[in-house]
Order: sequence, then C-alpha cells, then structure tokens
Amino acid sequence: MPKDNISLAVVRRLPRYYRHLQELSGEGVTRISSGVLAERLGLTASQIRQDLNCFGGFGQQGYGYNVENLHREIGDILGLRQNLRAILIGMGNIGRALCHNFDFSSAGVTLIGLFDSAKEIVGTYTGDLLIHHIDELESFAALEQPEIAIFTLSKRSALSIAKRVSALPSVRGLWNFTNVDLRDGPGTLPVEYVNYTDSLMTLCYRVKDNR
Amino acid sequence: MPKDNISLAVVRRLPRYYRHLQELSGEGVTRISSGVLAERLGLTASQIRQDLNCFGGFGQQGYGYNVENLHREIGDILGLRQNLRAILIGMGNIGRALCHNFDFSSAGVTLIGLFDSAKEIVGTYTGDLLIHHIDELESFAALEQPEIAIFTLSKRSALSIAKRVSALPSVRGLWNFTNVDLRDGPGTLPVEYVNYTDSLMTLCYRVKDNR
Repeated sequence: MPKDNISLAVVRRLPRYYRHLQELSGEGVTRISSGVLAERLGLTASQIRQDLNCFGGFGQQGYGYNVENLHREIGDILGLRQNLRAILIGMGNIGRALCHNFDFSSAGVTLIGLFDSAKEIVGTYTGDLLIHHIDELESFAALEQPEIAIFTLSKRSALSIAKRVSALPSVRGLWNFTNVDLRDGPGTLPVEYVNYTDSLMTLCYRVKDNR
Repeated sequence: MPKDNISLAVVRRLPRYYRHLQELSGEGVTRISSGVLAERLGLTASQIRQDLNCFGGFGQQGYGYNVENLHREIGDILGLRQNLRAILIGMGNIGRALCHNFDFSSAGVTLIGLFDSAKEIVGTYTGDLLIHHIDELESFAALEQPEIAIFTLSKRSALSIAKRVSALPSVRGLWNFTNVDLRDGPGTLPVEYVNYTDSLMTLCYRVKDNR
C-alpha cells in the first residue's frame, strides 16, 4: 500500500528500476535479489529495499523480487497505464527529434497533436500528425482533451504559451524542454524539466572531482 | 571550505541556484535572504542554508547572501571555469539541436568537434565546425585533447563507441543523451544522463497524483 508523500527523489529512481526490470524480464530473468539488482543499477541493496518499502515492499526475505511482478507494480505506481495524451508545442530541432526518435509508448503516452507558429511548416505532416497553428490550441484541446503539454518552443514565447496551456481544463502536466522556469506561469500544474544546462553543469562538477 | 563527499542530490540543485542568481544579478539585486531565494526556487529557506553549508556557508546572519559573490562561488564549485572542450558524436536531430540552439558557454564548455558516420554529412559544416568521420575520433582526440564526449548517437552504436571514447586519455566525462546505460562501458568515467524517458515517466507519476 503506497504511502502518501513519497519524496520525488525516490520517484525519480523508479523509472530506472522500471527500465532495468524490463530488460531483465527480456533476458528471461524471473527473480532477482536486491543485491544483484543494486549492482546492476549502481545503487546499494539497502537503498533499493528502502525505496521499494515506500510503496509497500514487494520482496520476500530469502527469495528476492519477482521481476515481472515488480516491473508491473512499478509501472502502476508510475501511472504508465493512464493512456495519457500529449500535445507538443514547438517543431524546432528538439520537437522534431522527439517526434522522430522518442518512443512515447515506453511511458504509455500518445502524441496526438503538434503546434507551431511558422507558416512554412503549419499544415504539413510529421509522421501521421498534422502541424497546427498555435492559434488553434484552444479549439484543438476542447475537442481532443490532451492531458500533457510538451514545451519545445523558444524561450521568448514559453511564458505566454504556458499561460494559455494552463488555462486548458484537460491539461494536467507540462514537460518542459525550455530553460524557462514555468513554476510561476501555470499555477499548480506539475512541470517536469529536461534541463540540458543543469545537466552539463553537473557533469562539469563531476569532471572537476575526477581529475 | 567545501566538504568532501557532497551528495550528488545537493550538487544537482546548484545549477538552479546558479541560474537564478545570474538572473537576480541581471535584475540588479545585490543581496538576498535565504527566504526570498527559497521562494523563488520553490525550496525552503532551511534547505538552501543546508545546501550551501555543505560548501562552507556564504551567508551572514541578518544580511543574507551577496548575490554576485554567491553566483561566482557556485560557478567555481561547479567548475564552470575549467574551459572544458567537448566533442559531439552523432549528428541526428538531437545532435543538431544541441549544435544550433544550446548555449555551451553557459556551462563554460566549448564544442570543438563533431562526429558522425553518415557519408552524406561527413565533411560538411555545422556552424563553424566540420563533421568528421567517426574513424577519425582517435587522431582528432590525440591532437585536440577533448575532455568531454557528448553521446547523441543511436542506441545500437552507443556501447561500442563508449569503449573507444573511454580509451581516449584526455576524456574525463560523458554527457549521454542515449537511453543506454554507459556505466559498464567506460569504466570509472562520470556519465551524466539526459534521459527523456525517465523524465516523462516521472511526469506521469506526478500527473497521476494531481488528479
């Protein structure tokens, strides 16, 4: 029985558990000890036991974890079977990279609409999806009810679009690839950041330590 | 005086401090209390004091933090003045997005070489930089001594290229945009991941909680 108030630090480790359990399952492994799983993940066994205990355990003393069960349970905890529908705003390089190369289904998400404001590409298709003009955002959302909005647009339009997106009743979360802090814009909507700069700065720190 | 063994969780918050202090400095703010800084960052004042105490403090009771000093100190802690030189391997959508849109200088890093294996693009330029064939990796690195290698290549070649990169004496860290776990490949080199899937899964969790 999952506790309330699980720390986000724990939640952020769950996708890694999930991916590795999927691989293990694909390799035909049916059960695994916290020690072996820890080695594979570069964590300690006690860290893993502690993390999973936040959600009620799952392991059995002396048996370890059932790989398939644990994989499914973590998927449920993460909410990967909500069939969330996403729109993507901004068809620059990053937007296109996501459309072409990213496997949204790995997170149980479906991309249902693309938006941009550049005349040259509005009305064209990327894969199966039409690129709509950003002016159609509200009418599209009223009809299609997307739950997630992906921000791959330019920094200068991020805040104003965030206001419009947060006014859409169906949208429940933002996936933000811009460097703009959207905490203020969209009220209480959860915002998940993919922040390249922060990641590269962290690498700089670790490289410095690793002289 | 920085302590040893700062947890990576603390380090990962430093870039956000750094970016916000830069903005504050740009807005003409010269000093700030931990409370006001906390509000801006969506953290608690005690969290901020605790984080900065890991590196020896910087604040003065009743005065707060000197914005410019703190910004510079955090930049030094992060190692943003090491003038690190980076090569980028894989000129697909994500590689191109980084070349065109990402401000490497914000982390004090300079992009010095691009690599790919596709005949159509090897020998062409992206901005000022020539795209080299991946076969030239070792000779280029011997001459130019890059410290960071950026992995924007396909999943299937990531592990074999990681082995070659980790054998380059100058390389001290990997910035990994592939979903491949490079922990095993490159020995003890620090690897910093930009993992879209994990980020989207975390958003799914937070959206679920936010019904």
